[in-house]
Amino acid sequence: MTHHVTTMLQTYPRDLGSIDQHKLAECIEACFECAQTCTACADACLAEDMVADLVTCIRKNLDCADVCAATGNVLSRQTGNNVETTRAALEACRTACKVCADECEQHAQMHEHCRVCAEACRRCEAACAELLAGLS
Amino acid sequence: MTHHVTTMLQTYPRDLGSIDQHKLAECIEACFECAQTCTACADACLAEDMVADLVTCIRKNLDCADVCAATGNVLSRQTGNNVETTRAALEACRTACKVCADECEQHAQMHEHCRVCAEACRRCEAACAELLAGLS
Amino acid sequence: MTHHVTTMLQTYPRDLGSIDQHKLAECIEACFECAQTCTACADACLAEDMVADLVTCIRKNLDCADVCAATGNVLSRQTGNNVETTRAALEACRTACKVCADECEQHAQMHEHCRVCAEACRRCEAACAELLAGLS
Amino acid sequence: MTHHVTTMLQTYPRDLGSIDQHKLAECIEACFECAQTCTACADACLAEDMVADLVTCIRKNLDCADVCAATGNVLSRQTGNNVETTRAALEACRTACKVCADECEQHAQMHEHCRVCAEACRRCEAACAELLAGLS
Repeated sequence: MTHHVTTMLQTYPRDLGSIDQHKLAECIEACFECAQTCTACADACLAEDMVADLVTCIRKNLDCADVCAATGNVLSRQTGNNVETTRAALEACRTACKVCADECEQHAQMHEHCRVCAEACRRCEAACAELLAGLS
Repeated sequence: MTHHVTTMLQTYPRDLGSIDQHKLAECIEACFECAQTCTACADACLAEDMVADLVTCIRKNLDCADVCAATGNVLSRQTGNNVETTRAALEACRTACKVCADECEQHAQMHEHCRVCAEACRRCEAACAELLAGLS
Repeated sequence: MTHHVTTMLQTYPRDLGSIDQHKLAECIEACFECAQTCTACADACLAEDMVADLVTCIRKNLDCADVCAATGNVLSRQTGNNVETTRAALEACRTACKVCADECEQHAQMHEHCRVCAEACRRCEAACAELLAGLS
Repeated sequence: MTHHVTTMLQTYPRDLGSIDQHKLAECIEACFECAQTCTACADACLAEDMVADLVTCIRKNLDCADVCAATGNVLSRQTGNNVETTRAALEACRTACKVCADECEQHAQMHEHCRVCAEACRRCEAACAELLAGLS
C-alpha cells in the first residue's frame, strides 16, 4: 500500500510544503495497516475460548482502530492549512497505539494475533512520533 | 439522540465509575451531531458557486467529521480501562472542533450552513472540554 | 439530532431534487443513532459475565455500526448525482440492521441493551426501506 | 499491506470456513487501499484550480471512501456467521467503486490523481466481485 500512498502524494496538484513526504507516506500507510490489524485482532480475541480474559484488549483494539482510521484520513488531506488538527490527531493516534501495544504485548506469547497487532501498533506509534517531530 | 445515548448508558451491566454520566451522554451526542453536520457542511460548500473559495473550509469540515466520529465511538465504550486514549481523543476532538468553528464562523454571514456548523462545532468543543475537566 | 439534520438540509444551496426531505432526515438520524447504539451494545455485551455466549451478537453489532455510519455519511451528501451508490448503501444498511436486530432480539429478555439496540436497528431498517421505496 | 492482512488471517484461532483466504486478503487490502486513494483523490480535486468542475467527482470519491472503509472492516471480521451482511456490504462496495471509477476515468487524462484513483476503484470492484462469486 505504501506504493499507492506515495503515488497519490506525487499526483497532488499543489506544493506539499515543508512536510517530509517519505515520513508522511509511511505514517499514512502505518495508520491504515494498524486500523485493519486492530479490527482483525479484536475479532480474533472474540474467537478465543478465553474471550472473557480479553475484553480489555478488545476494547483497546477497537479504540485504536477508530483513532488510526481517522488519523489516516486527516493525513491523506493536504488542501488548506490544518496543522493544528493534524498535530492533535497524531498525538491521539500515538497514544492509542501505545496503549494498545502495551496491552497486546501482555498476550503476545499466548496469542499470535496479539503479537502481530502489537508490532503494527508500535510501528504506527513510531511513525506518528517521527511525523510529529518534523511538523512546523 | 441524547435520549438513546442515555438509555444505552443506563443498560450498561457494570459500574460506570466516577465519570459524570450526564456530561458523557452530552459529549457522545455532540460528537455524532458534529460529525454529521460537518459532513453536510462540506457537501453544501461543494454545492456553492464559489466553491473555490471554500476549499479550506471543506478540508477542515472533513477532518473534524473524522475526528468527531472516532471520538464518539471511543466515548461509547466503557469496558476496560482506556482513560489515556479517551483523554487523547477528547483533546484531538476539541482541537478539530475549534479549528473548524473558527473557519466556519468566517463564512457564517454568507453561508447559513457554515453558521449552523460553527454552532455544532462550538457545542462539541465545549462538551469535550467539560468531559476532559472531569476525567480522573 | 433530527432537528439538526433537518436544519442542515434546509441550508443546502441547491435544489434537493425529488427526494422526500422528511424521510431523508429520518433515515440520516436513524443511521447515526443505530451506529452509536450498536457500538454501545457491543461494548455492553463485552461487559457481561456471559460474554462467551455473545460473540456473534458483538460481531453483528460491529458490522452494523460500520455500515450504518457509512450510509449516514453517504445520505448526508446531496452534491452530484450518486443515486446508484445511495441505493446500494441503503440496501446494505437495511440488511445489516435486519441481521443485527434478529440477533439482538434473541437476547432482549436477558439483556436490556440488546432490547434497546434491536429497536434502533428495526427503526433504521424501516427508514432505509422507506427511503429506498421513494428513490427514483 | 497484503502481507499483514494475510498474517492476521493466519493467526485466526478458529477455522475460517470455506472462504477463499487468498481472495479474502486481496479484497480486504483492495478496500483499504481504495478508501485511502479516494480520500486523497477528493483532496487533490479540491486543490485543482478547476475544482468547480470536479464536485461530482469529489462527492463520488467521498462516498466510495466511506463504503470501502466499512466493507474492509466487515471483511476483517470472521467471528460469528454474518454472511448476509458481508454479501450486502460487498455489493454496495462493488457499486460505489464502479460509480467512482466511471467518474474518475472521465478526468484521467487531465488529472493523474483521477487516473490512479480509477485504477484503485477498478481493482476493488473486481476483488469484491470475485469474493462475492465464491460466497456460499
